[in-house]
Amino acid sequence: MNDTFLKACRGEKTDYTPVWIMRQAGRYLPEYQKVRSKVDFLTLCKTPELAAEVTLQPVDILGVDAAILFSDILIPVEAIGMKLEFSESKGPILYDPIRDSVGISRLRTLDPQEDVPFVMDAVKLLKQSLKVPLIGFSGAPFTLATYMIEGGSSRNYVNTKRMMYKEPEMFHRLMDKITDCVISYLNAQIDAGVDAVQIFDSWAGILSPADFDEFALKYVNKIISALNPALPRIYFAFNCGAMLSHVKTSGADVLGLDWRIDISDAITTLGSNAIVQGNLDPCTLFGTKEIVAKRAADVVKKGRAAKGHIFNLGHGILPETPVDNAKALVETVHEVSAGGK
Amino acid sequence: MNDTFLKACRGEKTDYTPVWIMRQAGRYLPEYQKVRSKVDFLTLCKTPELAAEVTLQPVDILGVDAAILFSDILIPVEAIGMKLEFSESKGPILYDPIRDSVGISRLRTLDPQEDVPFVMDAVKLLKQSLKVPLIGFSGAPFTLATYMIEGGSSRNYVNTKRMMYKEPEMFHRLMDKITDCVISYLNAQIDAGVDAVQIFDSWAGILSPADFDEFALKYVNKIISALNPALPRIYFAFNCGAMLSHVKTSGADVLGLDWRIDISDAITTLGSNAIVQGNLDPCTLFGTKEIVAKRAADVVKKGRAAKGHIFNLGHGILPETPVDNAKALVETVHEVSAGGK
Repeated sequence: MNDTFLKACRGEKTDYTPVWIMRQAGRYLPEYQKVRSKVDFLTLCKTPELAAEVTLQPVDILGVDAAILFSDILIPVEAIGMKLEFSESKGPILYDPIRDSVGISRLRTLDPQEDVPFVMDAVKLLKQSLKVPLIGFSGAPFTLATYMIEGGSSRNYVNTKRMMYKEPEMFHRLMDKITDCVISYLNAQIDAGVDAVQIFDSWAGILSPADFDEFALKYVNKIISALNPALPRIYFAFNCGAMLSHVKTSGADVLGLDWRIDISDAITTLGSNAIVQGNLDPCTLFGTKEIVAKRAADVVKKGRAAKGHIFNLGHGILPETPVDNAKALVETVHEVSAGGK
Repeated sequence: MNDTFLKACRGEKTDYTPVWIMRQAGRYLPEYQKVRSKVDFLTLCKTPELAAEVTLQPVDILGVDAAILFSDILIPVEAIGMKLEFSESKGPILYDPIRDSVGISRLRTLDPQEDVPFVMDAVKLLKQSLKVPLIGFSGAPFTLATYMIEGGSSRNYVNTKRMMYKEPEMFHRLMDKITDCVISYLNAQIDAGVDAVQIFDSWAGILSPADFDEFALKYVNKIISALNPALPRIYFAFNCGAMLSHVKTSGADVLGLDWRIDISDAITTLGSNAIVQGNLDPCTLFGTKEIVAKRAADVVKKGRAAKGHIFNLGHGILPETPVDNAKALVETVHEVSAGGK
């Protein structure tokens, strides 16, 4: 197995900078579109053979150094009792959003083998053929809470923050339940064979640093402590570049960075012992090949200041991205970094 | 005139921390709703008597230390040749978005007296009765460019970034035109009598620091240099907390901060000679009075480390905000800070 990604996650010397791309199995790939055209999104997530098939695609097509299980962060939320639907125009919809104690008490405890067996089945299938490490993942409790309270995406997250600021105990009770769910979900993925896990805190960036500490970070701490430290644990708090000194205390082995911060500045804040993942603006891939190469090389070179660096975009690759530019990106990262750090 | 706001902008000693609220004249106020119910949004912006009336409302109702002219950042964009409409559901729509040289060459040069006389008329009306300083404003060139290229708000700003990365010269030509427009627009407001100006860079935070320098900041520099330095010039680059070391070089007298950064950390990066404005999460106002008071006091106290501090929210006040909490906020800031810094 190509273990460059895992070595970098551990801060070990590597021959080149490993790279994978968030949402690398996704709509920008015609091969994905073909599979997806036959089934709806949730069926794709819940059919191990199909989920495994699209998970493998970018490994073959782009030559990335890690695969990430194709799934959705709301899968376990549906499994503990909320009705989930994906709308082409609005994105995810969770029915009967949680606004009170009754809503919280209706949530079940996750039994991964019973409730989401397809996730572990996909992991097992993938481990039979994958030549690169497989990353399992979960949404972070705060991010999942925003979906559960808002009933989907939101502009200003008023319902979430109203609960935080008016009914903090209720909010914490919800977070406790979600945290337990995430811990069993990730441990089940680990037991099934994933080689690393990433916790996506996609909406942590709507919080002030004080609120991040009080309402989000401590639950991430609890999750990280409950996971086998032999496997790299990556925490990606999106849009939190101005509070990295807080993110730093998550306990994760690797910290994801979005593109709003210079990776050099991030490493300065996190310290040279940090292991970081990121952070090219996904929109760079809409530019010329020259811009892609130039900006990618800049990130690779600056990333050398950290103890370990896994190259990635600063957010998920966009559906309209030209595949050739994604390929060129992976090649550039490998070429520029060859010779090791 | 209550000149506490202007003193703070200049870094002079004040008896208390001045406060105003972004979008303080707006939908959360029943008095605003009443005026707005009779005319559409653009008519309100373009009728000096009505714009002046709603500009005054929060000064009387909340007791803020500055007024900001009621208008919209897209007013000058319409004036130089783009068709503008406000949709209740989608927000602003600019027809025939700019995607090529032809689009850019169609833009006219702004003649403020000819094209937007109502703006200066509103300023003159307000100056007759206002007992607090009046802030004029403009969108920053990059932010205006995103609207002009996307045709409205956007999720990922793909068209904007595609032009930046594929046709950088074209993008810079557009920015030159917008910059000239902003300079004449702000100077016309200054000639009409505003006491300070704020430049809103609401979408600068979609950029990486390198792109911010190349595609946004230098145009802000040019504008700031073209404005009378006797009047405070405030630059608010939203969601740029992780690149404050770049924002710092804008040349502005005062820098606005959003709530994603601890104001202490911001002052550390900017230096104790900095004059800052911000930065309470607008959603705090959905909480209990205790939370509002606690969080506001925290910002006031930490703000003392800067040479000057103007209290504000970290973004515009939201339409659903309880007016009583906005009043309580202004009172708290005045009380907690009384005695001067």
